[in-house]
Amino acid sequence: MKPEKIVIVGGVAGGATAAARLRRLSENAQIVLIERGEYISFANCGLPYYIGGAIENRSKLLVQTVDGMSDRFKLDIRNRTEAVRINRDEKTVLLQDLRTQEFYTESYDVLILSPGAKPMLPPVPGIAEAAHLFTLRNIPDTDKIKGFVDKVRPRRAAVVGGGFIGLEMAENLHELGIEVSIVERSNQVMEPLDPEMAAPLHLHLKEKGVSLYLGDSLASIEDEGKRLLLQSGAEVQTDMIVMAAGVQPESSLAEEAGLALGNRKTIAVNEYLQTSDPSIYAVGDAIEVQDYVNGTAGFVPLAWPANRQGRIVADNILGKKTPYRGTLGTAISKVFDLTAATTGNNEKNLVRQGIAYRTVHIHPNSHAGYYPGAKPMALKLLFSPEDGRILGAQGVGEKGVDKRIDVLATAIKAGLTVYDLPELELAYAPPYSSAKDPVNMAGYVAVNLLEGMLETVQWHEIDELLATGHYVLDVREHSERQADHIANSAHIPLHDLRNRLSELPTGETIYIYCHAGLRGYLALRILHENGFKAKSLDGGFKTYATARD
Amino acid sequence: MKPEKIVIVGGVAGGATAAARLRRLSENAQIVLIERGEYISFANCGLPYYIGGAIENRSKLLVQTVDGMSDRFKLDIRNRTEAVRINRDEKTVLLQDLRTQEFYTESYDVLILSPGAKPMLPPVPGIAEAAHLFTLRNIPDTDKIKGFVDKVRPRRAAVVGGGFIGLEMAENLHELGIEVSIVERSNQVMEPLDPEMAAPLHLHLKEKGVSLYLGDSLASIEDEGKRLLLQSGAEVQTDMIVMAAGVQPESSLAEEAGLALGNRKTIAVNEYLQTSDPSIYAVGDAIEVQDYVNGTAGFVPLAWPANRQGRIVADNILGKKTPYRGTLGTAISKVFDLTAATTGNNEKNLVRQGIAYRTVHIHPNSHAGYYPGAKPMALKLLFSPEDGRILGAQGVGEKGVDKRIDVLATAIKAGLTVYDLPELELAYAPPYSSAKDPVNMAGYVAVNLLEGMLETVQWHEIDELLATGHYVLDVREHSERQADHIANSAHIPLHDLRNRLSELPTGETIYIYCHAGLRGYLALRILHENGFKAKSLDGGFKTYATARD
Ligand SMILES: Cc1cc2nc3c(=O)[nH]c(=O)nc-3n(C[C@H](O)[C@H](O)[C@H](O)COP(=O)(O)OP(=O)(O)OC[C@H]3O[C@@H](n4cnc5c(N)ncnc54)[C@H](O)[C@@H]3O)c2cc1C
Ligand SMILES: Cc1cc2nc3c(=O)[nH]c(=O)nc-3n(C[C@H](O)[C@H](O)[C@H](O)COP(=O)(O)OP(=O)(O)OC[C@H]3O[C@@H](n4cnc5c(N)ncnc54)[C@H](O)[C@@H]3O)c2cc1C
Ligand SMILES: CC(C)(COP(=O)(O)OP(=O)(O)OC[C@H]1O[C@@H](n2cnc3c(N)ncnc32)[C@H](O)[C@@H]1OP(=O)(O)O)[C@@H](O)C(=O)NCCC(=O)NCCS
Ligand SMILES: CC(C)(COP(=O)(O)OP(=O)(O)OC[C@H]1O[C@@H](n2cnc3c(N)ncnc32)[C@H](O)[C@@H]1OP(=O)(O)O)[C@@H](O)C(=O)NCCC(=O)NCCS
Repeated sequence: MKPEKIVIVGGVAGGATAAARLRRLSENAQIVLIERGEYISFANCGLPYYIGGAIENRSKLLVQTVDGMSDRFKLDIRNRTEAVRINRDEKTVLLQDLRTQEFYTESYDVLILSPGAKPMLPPVPGIAEAAHLFTLRNIPDTDKIKGFVDKVRPRRAAVVGGGFIGLEMAENLHELGIEVSIVERSNQVMEPLDPEMAAPLHLHLKEKGVSLYLGDSLASIEDEGKRLLLQSGAEVQTDMIVMAAGVQPESSLAEEAGLALGNRKTIAVNEYLQTSDPSIYAVGDAIEVQDYVNGTAGFVPLAWPANRQGRIVADNILGKKTPYRGTLGTAISKVFDLTAATTGNNEKNLVRQGIAYRTVHIHPNSHAGYYPGAKPMALKLLFSPEDGRILGAQGVGEKGVDKRIDVLATAIKAGLTVYDLPELELAYAPPYSSAKDPVNMAGYVAVNLLEGMLETVQWHEIDELLATGHYVLDVREHSERQADHIANSAHIPLHDLRNRLSELPTGETIYIYCHAGLRGYLALRILHENGFKAKSLDGGFKTYATARD
Repeated sequence: MKPEKIVIVGGVAGGATAAARLRRLSENAQIVLIERGEYISFANCGLPYYIGGAIENRSKLLVQTVDGMSDRFKLDIRNRTEAVRINRDEKTVLLQDLRTQEFYTESYDVLILSPGAKPMLPPVPGIAEAAHLFTLRNIPDTDKIKGFVDKVRPRRAAVVGGGFIGLEMAENLHELGIEVSIVERSNQVMEPLDPEMAAPLHLHLKEKGVSLYLGDSLASIEDEGKRLLLQSGAEVQTDMIVMAAGVQPESSLAEEAGLALGNRKTIAVNEYLQTSDPSIYAVGDAIEVQDYVNGTAGFVPLAWPANRQGRIVADNILGKKTPYRGTLGTAISKVFDLTAATTGNNEKNLVRQGIAYRTVHIHPNSHAGYYPGAKPMALKLLFSPEDGRILGAQGVGEKGVDKRIDVLATAIKAGLTVYDLPELELAYAPPYSSAKDPVNMAGYVAVNLLEGMLETVQWHEIDELLATGHYVLDVREHSERQADHIANSAHIPLHDLRNRLSELPTGETIYIYCHAGLRGYLALRILHENGFKAKSLDGGFKTYATARD
């Protein structure tokens, strides 16, 4: 029998999507949507851009209003109402109307939880006294920050946390003419990227005048928020603080109801998004998800999963059983003029999980180099040495990164291997790509690695190799070498190599590098075919030099 | 035994790529590259943009020079040398040095043909006498056109043929301030698109001031090329003519050698790109390829296939056997401010092949509507009614079309169905996409169709339905209806529908339309759930109105 009354807690990405789909599946179901805040169905992801002014109109953030959505989907929407307790035996929720403070109960046949996540506040001394300390999750948070920056016109801002929300806030505050500092505990911003891929972001942030405090964390807040003291002893003067040090699931309601929890206090669900109580489903930021690549449990607070899960949960409740197949963690962020994007597992994670992998770094152009406006991007591919299965990809660049990561995310979901990537027949005309798209190229290089046509050495291995007396060979042109090179490397330009083989050491491995890897590969082929042992620096001098900066 | 001497005819996309890969596979093979023209390895695809000035530097068109490429890949390159006859018994090619006019023979163990294609010239009266008539295939052609437009500064140009080369030429001549007319025999430009998808291009071309003569063809050229007479009787005055009425394979050398030919005089090859003579391989524009979707033989003169085949043929010759898996025909073109792209089969083709299909038209934004710069695109998906296999896709819009077509091309190559499209976890942040990407959305709509959640009617069926007295219902807002609507349609805005069900006819199908299809679907769900029969106009008023313009 189909449930007659469905109560949903949380009226934004997961909750509103579930409500809409439920109604499309059934005109008769009674659907009650409970939202603590004033607003439902707003564009969380747009909030930083409204603060920075790119989104001019506040009303644009409100994708649906309470009235509009009630009408369109025949919903009983209770905003400014908090779900405070679940009584699983009675199948009721205790609600509090936040306008009147009154409590009342609402029964349910099925309950959907989409309570989201909340910003974490590190328990540092001085945090309670900080006058202008903000977090960003919803419209009221946004109004507070926007109100403050418009009225007080602060000169300096400190952002604690270099994840995507921290970086988006840094960019948007910078757009307002504010001097921004970012404090990030890890040695890099944007944790889902590997360090050499985050390195171009560091350079870019510095170019833009953002002060970066990496590998350092907040020790205390002084002078009512006017001064941050960091673990290293460094001090940051500021007129406002944005805490963007990560989020945690809003799972206390579920926890108090005795529902099983997963890692990091997420709500545990089965593949049909059912909690340990079969009448209660949960979706969105608050739940535990399986990593699509490695199967481990994770917490991925992003909008695509929330929307997808909201849709699926409605289907599951009304009888169209659909499993949720796990989360890849595809994510993207604009960081000033750069785009950083990722899908699947990063190298740090593969190491942590003990999963065997190979990597490829390339620096292709966004489109044909001869057509104006082409920009180089850094693209990293991670794949299995056994069968070439694609494990993850990362891209950073000014243009075209989103497209390549989307193609690779599709390839991963489709179970493709690196052997399939050269076969992808992607759209080519000069303004859009090259006859071999960057994704094809990454595939070619990966296949060469697996087939032994190419052997590589990584950027982080070179210094040690040189220190231990190995032969490192620069095959770039004289002018490139003059501009910069790896100290103590030998030099024979590629076009001379065949004539100067006699200068090379025999019996030991020659470590070749060029600008980005292509000429290193060509040199390696010449050497291999002439009986030398050689490896080429993956990603070339570019990856090496950027990562070491 | 590996072949020792490989002769390649044609030194650009397919030929140069094969030569480079052959050398990477073997330092010892003797590789002779024969090219009739002065230049090898040039950017054919950039030629129109050099004429228009977007590419400023002629040298940028020369991806590799004869010297550079000879050095890098140890090649014996003979430019300005034509292969005039193949002697298969002796395994030799007769060559003519076009500088000296001398003939000589060159032996081969293996021969690779990558002779490309050549522009077709319709045999119309007056063509021989036309003074300023051009075609565009190579650098000398480009120099001629560029020389003419720079020196003579023509006021008007006529482009015969509305395929991608014709349109690129139209745009680039227009950029130079020239008044452009396009004459196209078919009722639409850009043949790989279906007519309703080409319709926005027609509007856009007209907006840009290009005169379009569709469904009309060249009857004769008068006044030494100053006047085109069309079949319809229309006349086009012009100062120059660009013939871009398609290309045909350069297969006469192969034909005279008695090699088997395929359709449209292409060179027939097996899946290893071997011609009917096992010592002769062929690649690129000149060969017959299998359609990846429907398996029929075709002719797809594009750069991705030529490059891919050039790479594969080298592998096959030197022992790394790799089949060529057919061509999807993924293609893209910039048409002034619009992008038009396609992959797989179009509807016209499916009809012709008698393949069962369903279609979906949607008009999503390139990225989140609330973030500045979002532009709507038209996206069409074709798929199998039996199993949801994706058969083809087309997109037209200002932004983000290339990305969605690439994702869909990947999906087709991976054998995905429309059921997989909602599962694609694509990168979302407001500047790049929406939490449900257009590709996800197309998948949702397609799955709804297959599952009976949605029934649709197509843009070309509506007028007939109205003429035969059917009930057509507009569910848009009053303001939208006032701006424009389908004559004789009834009107109930979506938000009023539940209250006004009693106004609707029972027992007959209600044909619903809205702007783009979303509200039509919501209205249909309400009607279906209330026991009415209803279908929704696929693509909404937007597809209908554009297609009929
Ligand atoms: C500034 C910012 C930028 C972001 N940018 C991106 C981006 O670019 N890309 C991306 O993929 N993701 C982004 N996200 C994340 C994305 O917004 C979330 O993943 C998504 O909104 C999660 O959906 P949800 O339904 O789980 O939670 P939410 O959308 O947060 O909705 C949960 C709702 O539940 C309500 N609620 C919680 N508990 C109760 C209760 N007990 N009673 C009543 N109501 C309750 C809350 O008030 C909240 O409104 C961003 C988030 C933020 C904050
Ligand atoms: C103006 C223009 C724009 C284009 N834009 C695009 C685009 O945006 N996207 C896309 O995918 N494709 C595009 N193409 C198509 C693309 O350039 C071709 O598909 C590709 O070049 C085919 O490669 P090929 O090696 O088969 O032929 P080509 O690259 O044409 O090379 C063939 C060579 O063989 C030589 N040759 C022929 N016969 C002989 C002989 N008997 N002896 C010696 N030499 C001989 C010819 O002189 C020629 O140089 C465009 C083409 C043109 C002309
Ligand atoms: C606004 C909101 C309630 C919409 O939910 P929704 O109705 O499920 O989503 P959409 O408006 O995108 O419409 C999708 C539906 O329309 C259908 N659809 C879309 N375009 C269509 C078209 N042209 N023709 C037919 N159907 C169409 C889809 O199939 C889908 O229906 P289904 O789920 O029954 O298959 C919800 O997405 C929301 O609250 N969003 C804001 C919050 C948020 O997501 N924040 C995080 C990101 S900032
Ligand atoms: C210029 C031309 C000769 C190059 O051929 P090519 O050497 O095969 O191609 P690329 O320069 O793109 O290099 C690709 C090779 O480098 C390798 N490579 C690329 N980047 C690399 C990197 N960072 N590290 C290691 N290897 C790399 C690839 O694996 C591939 O080698 P493989 O085929 O042995 O696997 C040929 O593409 C050409 O003539 N192009 C112009 C004509 C044309 O294509 N016209 C139509 C479009 S306008």
